[in-house]
Amino acid sequence: MRASISPQGSMSLLSQLEIERLKQSSNSDLYKLFRNCCLAVLNAGSNTDSSAEIYDRYQDFAVNILRRERGVKLELIEPPQEAFVDGVLINGIQEHLEAVLRDILFTGDRYNVESLVDADSATLTHVVFDILRNSRTIKPMDEPSMVVCWGGHSISEVEYKYSKEVGYQLGLRGLNICTGCGPGAMKGPMKGATIGHAKQRLANGRYLGLTEPGIIAAEPPNPIVNELVILPDIEKRLEAFVRTGHGIVIFPGGAGTAEELLYILGIMMHPKNQQQSLPIILTGPPSSKAYFEALDEFIKQTLGEEARNWYRIIVGDPQAVAQHMHAGMASVRQYRRDSGDAYYFNWTLFIDEDFQHPFVPTHENVANLNLHTEQAPEKLAANLRRAFSAIVSGNVKDEGIRRIKEHGKFEIHGEKQLMQRLDKLLQAFVEQGRMKLPGSVYHPCYKVITD
Amino acid sequence: MRASISPQGSMSLLSQLEIERLKQSSNSDLYKLFRNCCLAVLNAGSNTDSSAEIYDRYQDFAVNILRRERGVKLELIEPPQEAFVDGVLINGIQEHLEAVLRDILFTGDRYNVESLVDADSATLTHVVFDILRNSRTIKPMDEPSMVVCWGGHSISEVEYKYSKEVGYQLGLRGLNICTGCGPGAMKGPMKGATIGHAKQRLANGRYLGLTEPGIIAAEPPNPIVNELVILPDIEKRLEAFVRTGHGIVIFPGGAGTAEELLYILGIMMHPKNQQQSLPIILTGPPSSKAYFEALDEFIKQTLGEEARNWYRIIVGDPQAVAQHMHAGMASVRQYRRDSGDAYYFNWTLFIDEDFQHPFVPTHENVANLNLHTEQAPEKLAANLRRAFSAIVSGNVKDEGIRRIKEHGKFEIHGEKQLMQRLDKLLQAFVEQGRMKLPGSVYHPCYKVITD
Amino acid sequence: MRASISPQGSMSLLSQLEIERLKQSSNSDLYKLFRNCCLAVLNAGSNTDSSAEIYDRYQDFAVNILRRERGVKLELIEPPQEAFVDGVLINGIQEHLEAVLRDILFTGDRYNVESLVDADSATLTHVVFDILRNSRTIKPMDEPSMVVCWGGHSISEVEYKYSKEVGYQLGLRGLNICTGCGPGAMKGPMKGATIGHAKQRLANGRYLGLTEPGIIAAEPPNPIVNELVILPDIEKRLEAFVRTGHGIVIFPGGAGTAEELLYILGIMMHPKNQQQSLPIILTGPPSSKAYFEALDEFIKQTLGEEARNWYRIIVGDPQAVAQHMHAGMASVRQYRRDSGDAYYFNWTLFIDEDFQHPFVPTHENVANLNLHTEQAPEKLAANLRRAFSAIVSGNVKDEGIRRIKEHGKFEIHGEKQLMQRLDKLLQAFVEQGRMKLPGSVYHPCYKVITD
Amino acid sequence: MRASISPQGSMSLLSQLEIERLKQSSNSDLYKLFRNCCLAVLNAGSNTDSSAEIYDRYQDFAVNILRRERGVKLELIEPPQEAFVDGVLINGIQEHLEAVLRDILFTGDRYNVESLVDADSATLTHVVFDILRNSRTIKPMDEPSMVVCWGGHSISEVEYKYSKEVGYQLGLRGLNICTGCGPGAMKGPMKGATIGHAKQRLANGRYLGLTEPGIIAAEPPNPIVNELVILPDIEKRLEAFVRTGHGIVIFPGGAGTAEELLYILGIMMHPKNQQQSLPIILTGPPSSKAYFEALDEFIKQTLGEEARNWYRIIVGDPQAVAQHMHAGMASVRQYRRDSGDAYYFNWTLFIDEDFQHPFVPTHENVANLNLHTEQAPEKLAANLRRAFSAIVSGNVKDEGIRRIKEHGKFEIHGEKQLMQRLDKLLQAFVEQGRMKLPGSVYHPCYKVITD
Repeated sequence: MRASISPQGSMSLLSQLEIERLKQSSNSDLYKLFRNCCLAVLNAGSNTDSSAEIYDRYQDFAVNILRRERGVKLELIEPPQEAFVDGVLINGIQEHLEAVLRDILFTGDRYNVESLVDADSATLTHVVFDILRNSRTIKPMDEPSMVVCWGGHSISEVEYKYSKEVGYQLGLRGLNICTGCGPGAMKGPMKGATIGHAKQRLANGRYLGLTEPGIIAAEPPNPIVNELVILPDIEKRLEAFVRTGHGIVIFPGGAGTAEELLYILGIMMHPKNQQQSLPIILTGPPSSKAYFEALDEFIKQTLGEEARNWYRIIVGDPQAVAQHMHAGMASVRQYRRDSGDAYYFNWTLFIDEDFQHPFVPTHENVANLNLHTEQAPEKLAANLRRAFSAIVSGNVKDEGIRRIKEHGKFEIHGEKQLMQRLDKLLQAFVEQGRMKLPGSVYHPCYKVITD
Repeated sequence: MRASISPQGSMSLLSQLEIERLKQSSNSDLYKLFRNCCLAVLNAGSNTDSSAEIYDRYQDFAVNILRRERGVKLELIEPPQEAFVDGVLINGIQEHLEAVLRDILFTGDRYNVESLVDADSATLTHVVFDILRNSRTIKPMDEPSMVVCWGGHSISEVEYKYSKEVGYQLGLRGLNICTGCGPGAMKGPMKGATIGHAKQRLANGRYLGLTEPGIIAAEPPNPIVNELVILPDIEKRLEAFVRTGHGIVIFPGGAGTAEELLYILGIMMHPKNQQQSLPIILTGPPSSKAYFEALDEFIKQTLGEEARNWYRIIVGDPQAVAQHMHAGMASVRQYRRDSGDAYYFNWTLFIDEDFQHPFVPTHENVANLNLHTEQAPEKLAANLRRAFSAIVSGNVKDEGIRRIKEHGKFEIHGEKQLMQRLDKLLQAFVEQGRMKLPGSVYHPCYKVITD
Repeated sequence: MRASISPQGSMSLLSQLEIERLKQSSNSDLYKLFRNCCLAVLNAGSNTDSSAEIYDRYQDFAVNILRRERGVKLELIEPPQEAFVDGVLINGIQEHLEAVLRDILFTGDRYNVESLVDADSATLTHVVFDILRNSRTIKPMDEPSMVVCWGGHSISEVEYKYSKEVGYQLGLRGLNICTGCGPGAMKGPMKGATIGHAKQRLANGRYLGLTEPGIIAAEPPNPIVNELVILPDIEKRLEAFVRTGHGIVIFPGGAGTAEELLYILGIMMHPKNQQQSLPIILTGPPSSKAYFEALDEFIKQTLGEEARNWYRIIVGDPQAVAQHMHAGMASVRQYRRDSGDAYYFNWTLFIDEDFQHPFVPTHENVANLNLHTEQAPEKLAANLRRAFSAIVSGNVKDEGIRRIKEHGKFEIHGEKQLMQRLDKLLQAFVEQGRMKLPGSVYHPCYKVITD
Repeated sequence: MRASISPQGSMSLLSQLEIERLKQSSNSDLYKLFRNCCLAVLNAGSNTDSSAEIYDRYQDFAVNILRRERGVKLELIEPPQEAFVDGVLINGIQEHLEAVLRDILFTGDRYNVESLVDADSATLTHVVFDILRNSRTIKPMDEPSMVVCWGGHSISEVEYKYSKEVGYQLGLRGLNICTGCGPGAMKGPMKGATIGHAKQRLANGRYLGLTEPGIIAAEPPNPIVNELVILPDIEKRLEAFVRTGHGIVIFPGGAGTAEELLYILGIMMHPKNQQQSLPIILTGPPSSKAYFEALDEFIKQTLGEEARNWYRIIVGDPQAVAQHMHAGMASVRQYRRDSGDAYYFNWTLFIDEDFQHPFVPTHENVANLNLHTEQAPEKLAANLRRAFSAIVSGNVKDEGIRRIKEHGKFEIHGEKQLMQRLDKLLQAFVEQGRMKLPGSVYHPCYKVITD
């Protein structure tokens, strides 16, 4: 089966030179990246979270870039059928395809990985901003209203319904949703908010999805996502979350969620961010009470009591979550006004380079992580974040899965007590089925080793 | 608790004279009607379908009409709390309140029941059109796309999910939804279509709810309904359905659904409507197969084989329903073009006065219904429709419930075989729990008596 | 030549019954009124201000109302060619045609002259509001910004340019324009404001034209008018001006302008309007200095010194006019807020019935006017207004011209000194060519007779 | 006087890094260019066409770029007062300021002159497209409707009125206007079209101004221009005209108009453009008849009879011009469809590098122009174009005026007969006052010398 797609909007406006350059890239790495991301968004309804599996299943899939005087055309060869209604591509998915074209092209054209290796913090932040601006997700006129929802892609039905209810309550209060745009806790809040917005007649509800090439196949964007941005790596994606979001809700999740929590705590704990205003709420249904207690305990033991000031745990009360978040928007607004900062991008938030430079989860890099308590808590947070990031990679990312297949499990070394706590937390994630989608048996991709 | 509401849009534009007139009506029947309809829309989240019960529960509820130079204000005394978010009325419900004000006022002002007793068919149709036009639900530029969804307010979870899925598939194909705007089969398709429209980026999806004062409390409009019209009686509501709709989907239901099916068949079977194009589909999940077979059998036996040409039964295939309906839109469009008719109102559809003049379900009127097969099938359909209408009234309408309380069960007389078939069908509805919402025991409001 | 027009928007939405009723009216007075108003708006580019002459020239012109299932069609027989571009009716003129259809129908349908003879003040105001509301010129959300511009249809080139410059300066300040929608001082401000709005990127500039059947042919609406309302008579038109306007600018003019000035002064001087806020500016180029001095003197001598507090004369300074008007909007806003009044309609302005009931300028009525100073100044203003109204009628209105032809000049009787002042003022109008468009010799339609 | 301006829209969205870079440029050439262009757009109402004079008059004018967290601010020091209304910058002029910021920045950032010296044709075209796309003047959805109007900035009142009338007739037919955005024949059509669009209720009329840093001060954009693009040099500006325009109307003008005519003829005459569809009309009032005959004769004698096939001369008939142009749009549309080309950019038009590479009018370059008839007509056209371009520069551009002051007149050498014809044509321009705005005495900046 072949389908021919004419990009609309800005993507239709490529110059002859640009299309030519694009066509010539057909064998390059850039093209491979592009093709895989296309496959991921077309595969929105999929039920597996193994990127490798998806790529294997659709080996015949290809995208041809055709040059027309009027602009570019995309020809899809053997695309997943679920993306089509009576032979016509669903509009929301077409928009996602165009977002892939836009972001992969723009980033590939303007920023190459090598040139950014030595970039300073300001430059890396500029890159994040530039990509977001180019995707028109920066809305200079909007009041603070963007709530980032983090949480597992593999959660229980009860947790999923709860995340929907939280989204509904947020939507009723006019708040918008930003997630990593996969299933589970990334989809629930958006679905809920859609209904909330509809009841409040808010026609311009925003469902912002921030993803990256490594994760997009395992967590394909739900078509509700009406603004999709593909950042080049996990670190820029995380920076995009915390600079565009005005508040953060964290639902139960696995390694990825832990990575996100450590990331934001590591940043907020930095002395330069003492004045920042950013409401963070950990929440879930009553059944997740133990989960949050364990996480809370882990944070206290590793980053210290102070870290707990930055978040609040609310169990089983979606309305309270939304009310708290809604009230938080006023503080964010006040802080931004006082500091002269923009509403659309938190320029004053200080992010240490430790959190900005990409961490490549090779076996060597993982083994070399400094996981001892004899460092500033924000430094420890940065290193723990990398450890969780590696586990996510080994669990669901194509590259990570292939590395594990080849070299065996990651070895995470560190201080004894810290390692025990980490192991316990990870063990709980495994037992609660948070590492992989239900239906698959989880084979850990890591070993925790105490020094 | 008191809440003060400033109507927006057209309702804010009342003249001083009009507000004065409105205020003076505070003790009138018109006001009572207005107050009850307001209560009904505020009570959207309610879990009972007994109008009488709702009115009893909120006896203290009142609406005061306040005159301000800038326009009218509504003061709500002791309103249901579910209509508010953090003390602010949900926008969708505010719109419904304004629709109540608009329609009750407009109809009360322009058309009184007595003056229409002897009205001819053209005038009655004009009234329906005038009310719809005044509510701005007539969109002269739109292509045929309005699918009327009929079905029970009390349906099983499986049936509800199925109706959602059908709505989703309709929404994916750009079709809009019109229902009687209560729960069950009236809410499911709208919720599904909301997601379908969102995925197709259709920001102007229409969720049209047509109701009437007698039923609105038992079937309060879901806030998704973004166009609400309150017709003065069931007959005008039915006429509004079939003249604005471009296709009809019928889900499983009880007496009300049977009434609707008999209504539309009685019209379509009229010789003057032989050329009409109006796709009608009866559909439900696999578990409802027997239900449709029974209904189909009843139709065949009472109205004859020919009646069956007007509908198609599709079981367990939401996609096929949507595809069939989508294809039907093209025929409707063609027919309207050929006959020079408008897309927004089916002027050429002939509706006999039998179906237009209100049937008041008093015990006497019910007892006098002509239920014999020695009449044209469309006449029999008209009388059977009235019988079902009376049962709906006795089941859920305030007036009907009070009548039954006072005078005992309705007595439905008729030809033996016909009565047996009717009784069998009604018995099935009762057994399947289609007469009343689950949780309540159903006490029949009728007796079937063979002549 | 025949042209077939399909009304758009609300006018396309007539019921079959309404079209039938409309068709049947083809021989009635209502139809004649409709036909004449249609001719007037189609004749927008015309260079004569004699209604009689226009009706004579286009005796073959006719409008046929055709019934289609999809709605109404208008067939124009022998219409003026200037209304068409390459055979297609100019959109702006089509909108004016639709406004004629809407207003003539609506008013004819709802209010008949006889029934209003004994109407009280509140009812007459309601009628004005109802017509404006029906035409959707009432914008509940807008801030005060509507500047009514009065002045002659026959003015010098210098005065015309000046009125354009004033409009330009008003437009630059975001103010909108309302006029009687003919040529001269009614067109200049709109043209100027169009450029001012364009420079300020105000896409929703309002150019509101208020007219009435008697004057529309002599002063056909310029196509820039993007909201046209046809009030049933001059008194309702005047009331519409002063209740929807937030400020008034008066340019040089003849009898009509004097009528307007006396009207507004008579109202403002009423004791009940002492608190009202309504900026009134008389302005013109330096060459019009003497004109305003004469008018000012006449007002002082007839209505008294106090009347002069209500207006300000600014000569030769368009920027000052606009600045003054702009500042006035803030006072209007404050007054409306304080008194709880709407911005879109000045409900609190008291208008005596003397100014509301139509004055029919028959020879008898004119002869019977009470023109003595022994009455309250607002009463005298009311009677003087009627005298000027009669002169306008005799100058340019079809009916008036025919009356003068038949019965000779109007005889205006009154107190000696008053009559001398009146005669002097009228004489000045004649000499300055303000009574009729240049190119025609003016034959006075009146005699001033001292008692 | 100081005024602080917050750019809106895309210009508000600069990253901290970008603002820093911008601030640091304060002493650079880029900044000087930026400052001069800002001055030019602020000086919109000016009455001189000498760039040098303007820059001299406003020597104290400065723009400071201020960095705020929320984005960039511009501080204007001693700006021309005409750009403000009651102390607030006119919106249209603010948009022009933002366009200057956008284009100067974008071009300066991405393309530097040196790097393009050896660029091939495709790259140069890409640059033009990229600048237009970045300014969002490329509208992928629009039908062909953009009429380029060329003609003198210094024309007679009669010619100006005529150009307005042509604009009015084009506007009535829904056509949009693109000009070089100065006074005279560049302003008239836009003013006329504004009224035409208003009468046809076309709210989205486009008034596209294409300019370049060298000419912007002499021909400041009228605030009606609602899309302004500053191309880096005259050649890219000309290419932008002919690739975005769908038709060309040429009014009387001087050297600049002759340059434009030779440019387009040189392109159309190229063998590769034989199939192109592009209506070109030379038009003016009856009084300009002799002017066009002279021009026509010059073209015939220099480029040959064949050149005349590409244009049509229409004298004194604005309606015919508009009808012809309107009909031409259909051909353009057909041609673009047949050739698969875009409507928004004429990719298939072949433009020889001769017309693309900037010609710097130094005395040496002018002296070396090859002005002999022994070359292909399109080559001769290219060289003649350069000669006229030099004269424009010496007449009104800052750099050109300074060069003439320093080195004396340009010497234009060439074949005898050709030089005589050229001299005669130029002499006519001088006598008709087309070289400079009225009020100033023209001192030729050139000498024509026969070899």
